[in-house]
Amino acid sequence: MNGAQALIRTLADAGVDTCFANPGTSEMHFVAALDSVGEMRSVLGLFEGVVTGAADGYARMADRPAATLLHLGSGLGNGLANLHNARRAYSPMINIVGDHATYHARYDAPLQSDIDTVARNCSTWIARPKTAGAVARAGAEAVLAASTPPGGVATLVLPADASWGEGAEPAAPLPIPSARPIDDTIVDQVAKALTSGERTVVLVGGSGHRDAGLRASNRLITATGATVLGETFPARLQRGAGVPALDRLQYLAEFAARQLEGARHLVLAGTKSPASFFAYPDKASDLVPAGCAVHVLAEPGQDAVAALEAVADLVAAGTEPVPAPPARPDRPRGDLTAERVAQALGALMPDDTVVVDEANTSGLWAPAATAGCPPHDWLTLTGGAIGIGLPLATGAAIGSGGRPVICLEADGSAMYTFQALWTQARERLDVTTIVFNNSSYAVLNLELARVGAGEPGPKALDMLDLTRPDLDFVALAQGCGVPARRATTGEEMAAALEDALAEPGPHLIEAVVPRAV
Amino acid sequence: MNGAQALIRTLADAGVDTCFANPGTSEMHFVAALDSVGEMRSVLGLFEGVVTGAADGYARMADRPAATLLHLGSGLGNGLANLHNARRAYSPMINIVGDHATYHARYDAPLQSDIDTVARNCSTWIARPKTAGAVARAGAEAVLAASTPPGGVATLVLPADASWGEGAEPAAPLPIPSARPIDDTIVDQVAKALTSGERTVVLVGGSGHRDAGLRASNRLITATGATVLGETFPARLQRGAGVPALDRLQYLAEFAARQLEGARHLVLAGTKSPASFFAYPDKASDLVPAGCAVHVLAEPGQDAVAALEAVADLVAAGTEPVPAPPARPDRPRGDLTAERVAQALGALMPDDTVVVDEANTSGLWAPAATAGCPPHDWLTLTGGAIGIGLPLATGAAIGSGGRPVICLEADGSAMYTFQALWTQARERLDVTTIVFNNSSYAVLNLELARVGAGEPGPKALDMLDLTRPDLDFVALAQGCGVPARRATTGEEMAAALEDALAEPGPHLIEAVVPRAV
Repeated sequence: MNGAQALIRTLADAGVDTCFANPGTSEMHFVAALDSVGEMRSVLGLFEGVVTGAADGYARMADRPAATLLHLGSGLGNGLANLHNARRAYSPMINIVGDHATYHARYDAPLQSDIDTVARNCSTWIARPKTAGAVARAGAEAVLAASTPPGGVATLVLPADASWGEGAEPAAPLPIPSARPIDDTIVDQVAKALTSGERTVVLVGGSGHRDAGLRASNRLITATGATVLGETFPARLQRGAGVPALDRLQYLAEFAARQLEGARHLVLAGTKSPASFFAYPDKASDLVPAGCAVHVLAEPGQDAVAALEAVADLVAAGTEPVPAPPARPDRPRGDLTAERVAQALGALMPDDTVVVDEANTSGLWAPAATAGCPPHDWLTLTGGAIGIGLPLATGAAIGSGGRPVICLEADGSAMYTFQALWTQARERLDVTTIVFNNSSYAVLNLELARVGAGEPGPKALDMLDLTRPDLDFVALAQGCGVPARRATTGEEMAAALEDALAEPGPHLIEAVVPRAV
Repeated sequence: MNGAQALIRTLADAGVDTCFANPGTSEMHFVAALDSVGEMRSVLGLFEGVVTGAADGYARMADRPAATLLHLGSGLGNGLANLHNARRAYSPMINIVGDHATYHARYDAPLQSDIDTVARNCSTWIARPKTAGAVARAGAEAVLAASTPPGGVATLVLPADASWGEGAEPAAPLPIPSARPIDDTIVDQVAKALTSGERTVVLVGGSGHRDAGLRASNRLITATGATVLGETFPARLQRGAGVPALDRLQYLAEFAARQLEGARHLVLAGTKSPASFFAYPDKASDLVPAGCAVHVLAEPGQDAVAALEAVADLVAAGTEPVPAPPARPDRPRGDLTAERVAQALGALMPDDTVVVDEANTSGLWAPAATAGCPPHDWLTLTGGAIGIGLPLATGAAIGSGGRPVICLEADGSAMYTFQALWTQARERLDVTTIVFNNSSYAVLNLELARVGAGEPGPKALDMLDLTRPDLDFVALAQGCGVPARRATTGEEMAAALEDALAEPGPHLIEAVVPRAV
């Protein structure tokens, strides 16, 4: 078999059975080899940002990596923003980046560029097997690198001659290590802080946003009165009726500072020390209050859940977690607002939904409106690089094995990777996209005021404005083969959502909400 | 004034008066500063690939750099594919990449990533001024770096605190050097080759594709019988009735090899030695025939036109260039094909048109059909990273000062940067986009056969197929605010083109042509 066949066989044997692809000529042997491995599913994206965002969504739901197939340095570049988000989500992922044949590099052909330097931006592991015989082993190592806790992006640069060369053999899967254990000393130290009577805030990340982690966190709150907060932008947060609720650290530094105010102890359970998302003139970047001791209970890659459980067993023995009560808002009525979209979502969200949230300012009301909905997962924009929502929803639909996906999407962000809708249609995925059309980069209107750049002039305001012309998301969706309709009232919104959820396959609803600023 | 104001003033003083922008929070002071410099025009793109491709198109037509405004490493990543193309076009361009404040970097906030490593992929010059006082000087140096022949991408990473810091002053423009002179010895050597009676091929690049270069090249052909070829993918080729014609080196290595067959001398005038675009098993990458001497008359960055003129004065004194005769095909009739689209173009192309050609396989007939049209410019995909056409056309319309632009666009390529249409609508640009919808990545069907990967199976073929669902380019264009219609016959195509050209502002025509393979 050739290098490409050995690689795909190796990936499949290691449990990587989905490949999101946007190939070019140098990947043609890999493409041809897809048919040699029955269990490998290949999903075409019309743009590389769709491919990488989908692989991220897949990983967040399946808890194992998908592969991507990308075309040289420029293909990797097009995928880079969502690879950045995946890196911040600690999503396992294996990029296969085709390159020219090794002997072709010296000619500096038009598509030649320094792939490795681009890969370094987002990858925890990079390899470039030079022969067909070395490809499969590199593939097995890529799965190991991607899957080693906390998870990361592994990039395998595949020269065309290593792909087409014969005499290759598959490589056996390599054992994946578990999350690194935590230290008993720190468990005792954290238990002491929690029972000190001094204000203690626990910030959880990663696996702490799920099942066991949420239960342990909740016991800490009940037993000690501690504040426990999830990350501002969790990769995947489980929530809903019956699941212990976890508040999140706020995005705006002013509000986050208030959540942390007066804390004498900050415990980090699988996450980093909190900092402002952006820097602002004359405002602190570091959110840790003065005089607050920081205790690293678990770093990313350590077993945060075991750590939280160990602490809970010390300070909250006998305390049971308190599940969130069921509750749904009424269906909305009257002129549509972002809040009423959230109300419709809360009223109608089906069991076991996966919510992808890239609604930015328009999404403000959605978490509260859905807190008592049936249990669901909430996926967010982890790295701040907008344009992940539609791809993430695409991959989440596949990675979750067919759970309903609802994507809350901002108008500005939607326009980065709109092509994802086509893949949703092709793969007949049950994704309902709600685009909040407020005709603006609303978050930038907010930020322009916050950075203190003075009264904006007409040219500045023009850079935040999405009118002239108005975007027509219904037409855009239909262009990609996705049925779509527009809602301008709460009643229309609820009806559109109900219909979309009832009919298999993807749908889009353009929610026309008041113009920002 | 603050760093951002000083930078924009400096850019404008150096003749950089257009900024293609897709900003985020860290660029808000730059955005606010736009209004402080009256002559700076700022053009919003909804995706960074639109921004960088437009800056490339601007530079190719205006012969001076535009600025881009990008948001950290992920924004630069989204722009990278078209920056790669710009690098291959030697287009001058100045990227302003906003970054976190210098003191914020240590917190590794979500959007933090290694910007410089991404910039290295495409930039000839990178700087990161750390204070407001250093920004303007870096801006002047960026203009110098971008404009120094042959031209390149200069990337200025602008930390937010350097942007908002006060006490900055503009910097004076730095003198831009001319193209490096050529060596008399090589002129004599090339003249000798051309008059040796041995087959000599001259390959011209860069400025050799324009006016004076074309005239000098044409004199060589007439006087010596030499073959003179332009690059396969020139950044900007002048052509049409009254302009001496220049054949181009073919894309497919088999055909290119035939053009070069039997050559004993290959003269490079402002371009690199020819190599196959991709590597193929058992085929040579190097296109220089065995036993052929290569003479570097001018490297990129040297004065290729002066070199060609010096040679022509030696071997073709008294020979006048032969202009291409005027000719237009008849308007097409019958079921639409790619050839008939070319016929409509040839029949109707207005004076002084700029043609942007990313039609790939469907564009095969367009050059011949337009060879005798009124003088026009032909812009191509220089770096092989598809997704440049619509952005390039956007920038070319602005950089050419309002000349009519016709963009020949492949369906697959169109889907990478479709958002450019919105910018065309907002700026009311006279761009007519013709999308060849053949429901396929046709070039990959061709390449899949050529790489010898065997008979493709259903999964492989699925990766090259753009049906299920069919893309509706009329709906997509309307979604971006651009009037559009569909043509399925030659008559409809000609009528649609005629109407689009007669009405100001952007238009799109979906040309439905037979499905490839």
